[in-house]
Amino acid sequence: MSEEYTPPKVWTWDKANGGAFASVNRPIAGPTHDKDLPVGEHPFQLYSLGTPNGQKATIMLEELLEAGVAEAEYDAWLIKIFDGDQFSSGFVDINPNSKIPAMVDRSGAEPFRIFESGAILMHLAEKFGMFLPTANPARAECLSWLFWQIGSAPFIGGGFGHFYNYAPVKIEYAIDRYAMETKRLFDVANRRLAESRFLAGDDYTIADIATYTWMGNLYRGEAYGEAATFLSMHEYEHVGRWVGEIDQRPGVLRGRLVNSAKGLSERHSAADFDSLPPEKLKGIVKGF
Amino acid sequence: MSEEYTPPKVWTWDKANGGAFASVNRPIAGPTHDKDLPVGEHPFQLYSLGTPNGQKATIMLEELLEAGVAEAEYDAWLIKIFDGDQFSSGFVDINPNSKIPAMVDRSGAEPFRIFESGAILMHLAEKFGMFLPTANPARAECLSWLFWQIGSAPFIGGGFGHFYNYAPVKIEYAIDRYAMETKRLFDVANRRLAESRFLAGDDYTIADIATYTWMGNLYRGEAYGEAATFLSMHEYEHVGRWVGEIDQRPGVLRGRLVNSAKGLSERHSAADFDSLPPEKLKGIVKGF
Repeated sequence: MSEEYTPPKVWTWDKANGGAFASVNRPIAGPTHDKDLPVGEHPFQLYSLGTPNGQKATIMLEELLEAGVAEAEYDAWLIKIFDGDQFSSGFVDINPNSKIPAMVDRSGAEPFRIFESGAILMHLAEKFGMFLPTANPARAECLSWLFWQIGSAPFIGGGFGHFYNYAPVKIEYAIDRYAMETKRLFDVANRRLAESRFLAGDDYTIADIATYTWMGNLYRGEAYGEAATFLSMHEYEHVGRWVGEIDQRPGVLRGRLVNSAKGLSERHSAADFDSLPPEKLKGIVKGF
Repeated sequence: MSEEYTPPKVWTWDKANGGAFASVNRPIAGPTHDKDLPVGEHPFQLYSLGTPNGQKATIMLEELLEAGVAEAEYDAWLIKIFDGDQFSSGFVDINPNSKIPAMVDRSGAEPFRIFESGAILMHLAEKFGMFLPTANPARAECLSWLFWQIGSAPFIGGGFGHFYNYAPVKIEYAIDRYAMETKRLFDVANRRLAESRFLAGDDYTIADIATYTWMGNLYRGEAYGEAATFLSMHEYEHVGRWVGEIDQRPGVLRGRLVNSAKGLSERHSAADFDSLPPEKLKGIVKGF
């Protein structure tokens, strides 16, 4: 890296763009190898990993099951992104963007794909009529906060998390840029949660599920090394109140354990959770 | 900027984070001044600017009007983001995130807000039953591509556009990172559009509107200086075919002219377009 860098006229892929994700970043799409995805017995087949975006899907599915929606039973298969599982022909068929989570809905006569965490939340919410208000203005408020999260997460993860924690060189300008934006986003949420129990109003919705997985990890100090100290997370007390409340929901506790080295690498039945130490399902263990 | 930078333990806002957007980036949310928003006579009040995100809303409204939905009449007010209009008390009331576009739906008994370009597209599509399939798998496909665009645009605009064009210093690592991801995203779209007329299938949907405003500008060479050359946009021929087709839609031509210095700074009636040189509405003028 030079301070006097002049970009070439035409960018070429002739060097390693380093960092923790160097092995999985490419300037082209499409599959790198032929491999089918496994298929289990349940209506929903989830192919994912327990990152914040992955947790959105597993929390939603576990929340539906917790609410008694037996039709939301699912198989959660592990996609090891550092091993390139997202570039298999089977995965690319269900998500041409090669990112987790991706899902196949096999509840009807013809299976179909749905990808992107926000789309999966919308699809399940609409299918089962839960966690997404049907009447305005509540629905408009939920959609607004949901899309706010989807459009802002790249500044937190791909921006702040990358440059503060993952990049092979610490670049002051980039860290400042994304620290400022991450703090602003937390302040947006904090002001909203000072006046409202949940993001979209009195009811817990998919906007909360989407935002919680990202903000909860950072608030608890479980993301990006010393980021909670660096970003002064203690300033966001209303976010903390809301994270603490959602932390205790049984569906959330289970959802966070799926496709995770700290819980279940895969999940194929409710009984799978019985293999875990019971304290992990009571929200009293830090770090998962 | 130093190559040996070590971040402090706690980030503080004690320096200017430079570049074209330095005056509008802050680590806190909320209003900076008291000012109400103007309100016109139509059912939809849009507060926006003709950026790619702003164009999503104006194209959708003009597409609805083009399709004969008279109830989609709107007033489009200009929000000058470099003057800080997005930090007025009135704007923050309708979008606590202080970003354009934001809208008030006054079509019913009680006005309500909706913010974020993706939420505005969903809201209008659901309200009028257009440009969003109601049955699966078409709906799932549309949602997937819509959320794909919303979640990836920050890598193109806030990432590539910023570091390649706007940042006060050229940082090779950051430019490489975001050039690679922007090219990958174009390749995702290119492969999809090689097999499908539109992103979600045979029909033009809000997923196309959302993606077109970002990819169209870059493909045509109208974004971020020499970016089209730098990113070898000519490689994405199927994106080009799709951009060229959407470029000619009357609703798109009009929508791109709203809240723009190259067209109408504000739009309050269909007759407003009559003030423009007619060639601007025929898609034969480059650069708007």
